[in-house]
Parts: sequence; structure tokens; C-alpha cells
Amino acid sequence: MTAPAEEFARIARHFRPLAGAGALDLLDDAAVIAPPPGRELVLAADAMVAGVHFLPDDPPDLVARKLLRCNLSDLAAMAAVPLGYLLTVSVPRSTPDAWFAAFAAGLAQDQAAFGLALLGGDTTATPGPVSLSLTILGSVAPGCAVRRSGARPGDLLFVTGRLGEGALGLRAARGEVADPDGYFADRYHLPQPRLGIARHGLVSAALDVSDGLVQDVGHLCRASGCAAEIDAALLPRLPAVPLALALAGGDDYELAMAVPPGNVAALGAAAGAVMVTRIGRFHAGPPAVTLLGAALPPGGGGWSHL
Amino acid sequence: MTAPAEEFARIARHFRPLAGAGALDLLDDAAVIAPPPGRELVLAADAMVAGVHFLPDDPPDLVARKLLRCNLSDLAAMAAVPLGYLLTVSVPRSTPDAWFAAFAAGLAQDQAAFGLALLGGDTTATPGPVSLSLTILGSVAPGCAVRRSGARPGDLLFVTGRLGEGALGLRAARGEVADPDGYFADRYHLPQPRLGIARHGLVSAALDVSDGLVQDVGHLCRASGCAAEIDAALLPRLPAVPLALALAGGDDYELAMAVPPGNVAALGAAAGAVMVTRIGRFHAGPPAVTLLGAALPPGGGGWSHL
Repeated sequence: MTAPAEEFARIARHFRPLAGAGALDLLDDAAVIAPPPGRELVLAADAMVAGVHFLPDDPPDLVARKLLRCNLSDLAAMAAVPLGYLLTVSVPRSTPDAWFAAFAAGLAQDQAAFGLALLGGDTTATPGPVSLSLTILGSVAPGCAVRRSGARPGDLLFVTGRLGEGALGLRAARGEVADPDGYFADRYHLPQPRLGIARHGLVSAALDVSDGLVQDVGHLCRASGCAAEIDAALLPRLPAVPLALALAGGDDYELAMAVPPGNVAALGAAAGAVMVTRIGRFHAGPPAVTLLGAALPPGGGGWSHL
Repeated sequence: MTAPAEEFARIARHFRPLAGAGALDLLDDAAVIAPPPGRELVLAADAMVAGVHFLPDDPPDLVARKLLRCNLSDLAAMAAVPLGYLLTVSVPRSTPDAWFAAFAAGLAQDQAAFGLALLGGDTTATPGPVSLSLTILGSVAPGCAVRRSGARPGDLLFVTGRLGEGALGLRAARGEVADPDGYFADRYHLPQPRLGIARHGLVSAALDVSDGLVQDVGHLCRASGCAAEIDAALLPRLPAVPLALALAGGDDYELAMAVPPGNVAALGAAAGAVMVTRIGRFHAGPPAVTLLGAALPPGGGGWSHL
């Protein structure tokens, strides 16, 4: 326990500048916001722990941005627009002020990039590794959240971006694979939330690929009550990325989407500069994922933090 | 890393039964809720870490209830009505299923008692101690959140319940003081969120006493731009509770409130069966807390988790 004055000063110095309208300068017991009129709220929470979800010596600004982006990716999957977030930060007592300064600078950078602000939170000590938790708020027009359960036989399966780069990036960040220009490590540190692409009426279902493509498409199948096939030859990946990582690597944070065939052109327009690639289709049948042109990774693929 | 299937099964078994409307059975990327029409949202987040905020061998159901109640106490201070919460749980990989069962049972019990439901969250592994984070949502009529900044010279200072019992309870739970019937340990494990007492128009300002009375009344003074005096002889405490704990013990989770003199009878009515006690008053002057009838604890009192 340090003097409380120290904790308050740290909040004032590093977190108050991030506070948005309604956060009451982080000086009250809670934030008070008027929800956007005529909208539904979309809410998600993710935790990240040093040594599990990021490397203990990862730069704090990148850790902060990854935490925010993983949550933004959940909003992207639901077709929601970001509003704000609450954050709890548990750190060892010896954590230097510079760590907080860098962490807050990362948040500030991505708050500006993605249009949201800090609403509240808590900082505490821990005898263990840095443990972070972020709850994100977004909004969507009533009934227009995109769910996992809307995929229908005949829908095409699309993904944004390229697969397997987060997982290869983790290996690169650990020094296990060559990454001369740091591209893959960067992909691991800074996922790109694909906001604005999955839209109600354009895609039938969506989720963000965080556990691995095959497993996550399996989630779409189970929620929607249909089957999917993935064509290994169609998977968007760089030559350096092994097929197994594209299929089952975690930390992609790309979107997998069920798209009615008539909406393909509109999807491309919605995606703008972001690549979207057809990698398979949904069909009638019990929930299952079939892989064409390659063997499924052992255990069906997928990756979990627990 | 265990098989992802294990994590999903655990969520289905223990957390899905807690999920409220809008949580989408915890099967989607995020929750979707319609905010209560014509209300403002009140949002707070708190983290709790084993060995810092609770004892590593505390029963998991009590830990869960304390986590929920500390956040409910923040809503009580703002005069908000609970809506729901999101929760992240980071636990060692060896954590048995029975831990989750007990933890969820505690949540279920207090969800029913306080009228709110789980909206979403995350479970992860950690190489460190159990780390929990909870974000709570409540609502309030527009403009009717009670703030820390509304205290005015002439207001009386009231507290709910009795002070110092949480701090003495921590010592009892550690076996450092006698507690034959477990009353004090219970007070440490299960704070009572004082919902419905601080109301707009009835109290000018409020907060929940979590860092220690003197320090927290100091927060009211700073936010409101006035001074307060506390009469040590008036502090509601059991004979077993040392004055120093009533002044500076943490973990009270009682409310400190600024109350215009004309509202005292109405406050008593709003409090119902909960005791409310006048312990001092606010007066004009630079923000400071004066203690009458006793010396301030060294450092001005107060207690922090960091």
C-alpha cells in the first residue's frame, strides 16, 4: 500500500486526460451518460493478463491499444459504433510512473483513432502479473446488431484481411521466427478492429476470429444451426504463414461473416480499403465445419487462453 | 491452455444461468440491451485481487458477492438503480470446477437480492492470483444522479450504518482479533450496499466510504469546495471498534452524505430500517476535514489498495 494520494495523483495525471463527457473527470463514484437516443447499447468485456495474452515486456502503449482493439473488434462483429469504455488496471506495486504514462499514451492514441473515451475504472495493486480488464460500450440501431445466429444455407463465408498473422506474430515477438521488418510482431501487437464492415442487412451473421478460424466458424454454425465448408486454397494468407496458423491460430481479430450471394458487391463497397475474401459457404446440415483441400488441424483447430 | 471446449462448457454450466435479457446467453460477441427509456446510465468498475482485496482462502461465493456489492455501493452513492453487470474472471489453470460453482452461486444469490443480471464477460487463465473485474450498469432519472460535488455550507454530514466494522472484520478474518460469533468477519466479507437512501433532492452529495471516513469526507469537501467537521463522539461504532478504524478503516461501504437540515426527517424515512447518523456538518472554507474530540489519525487517515 502506498499513500492513497499517490494513487489519486496517478489517476489525475494519466487517466483524467482520457476521460470523456459523463466520466465526471473520474472524480465521482460512477460515470453518468445519456444513452444515444433511439439506439440499443452493445456491451462487451475482455481481460488480458501479462504472460497469457501479452508478453511481460511488451511496450505498455501497445498493450493498452491491443486491449482496446480486442474489445473494439467485438463491437465490429456486432455492427456497433463505439461509445466509450471502463478500465481496471492491476499492477505490481513497483510499477513505475513511466509505465502508466506509456499505457495512457497508447489509450489516447486509439481513443482518437476510433472515436471513444474513457468513462471510468479502477487501479489496484497485485502481487501477480499485470492484469487488465476493459468493458466497452457501443450502440446500434434497434434490432440491427449482427448476431452469430443468422447464417443461412446458401450464404457465402467471407473473412476480412489475412489469417494467421497474429499467431505468427506471437512467435515473431518471442524471437522464434524471423521477422526482419517486424511486420508480424506488429500484427500480433496491434490487431485491426474491422469496424463498419459487418452491417445489418448486408451480412447474416458475424463474429471476430479470436480463437482460430475453424473453431470460430464452428461457433457460427452452432449458433445458426447449419454447416459450413472452408476451402483451404482460398484462405487469404501471406506465403510465410503456415496453413495451420491460418486455420487455427488465435489472435486474428478479423471478421468471419455469412453473406447472402446477392450482397457480395455491397460487402466489397462497405469494406472499402479492407480486403474481404470468400473462403467457403454455409449449407444445410448439422453444425459442423468441413475443410476442403487440407486436413483439419488435430482437435479441430482452435486455441484458447484457458 | 486447456481445450477451449472446457472453457465453453464452464461458461455454459456456471455463468449462462446468470445471464439476463440482452446477454444473448453469453453466446455472442457482445450483449445488446435497450437502455431504459428516459433514463441516464450510471457506470462503474472495480477490480479485486486475491491477497489484496480479499483473502486467498475466502469462500468463492462470498468473494463474488463482495465484488458485486462493492460495485452496487457505487450505484447507491449515485442514487442509481441497478441494471446489470459484466464480469471478467482470471484464475489459475488449476482452479477446480467447484470454485466456479461456488462463485456463480454467490452471484446468483445477490443477483436475486438486488435485482440485476449478468450481461457478459470473459474468463481467462492467469499465472498469478485470482483477479476479478466487474463493471456495473445502473440507471437514474436525467439530472438526478447524486454527485460528490453538491455539498453546501450548512449541510449536515450523515453516514449510514456503523463505521470501522469492515476493517475490524479483516483483522477478524485473519484471526488477529477475537470474533466469537463471526459478526465482524461477516461484515468484511459482505458489505451492505445502501441502495435507495441517497436520493436526488434529499441529499446534496454522497459517496461510499471505501478508503476510510476522513479521507472520503475529504473527497466530498474537495469536490464541493467547502470544509467539513466530524465530531468523534458521534461516530456510530460498536464498543469493540477502535476509533481509529471508524475514522480511517477501509472497506466500510457505508454512505457519507451531505444533507440540508430541512431534509433530516425525510432522510430517516428513506433509510427505513437502516440506521443513519449525523456525525458532523459542512461549513464555508477551503476543503479540509476537522475532527472534533480526537486527534486525526497519522497521515490524515485513509487507506488505499495501492
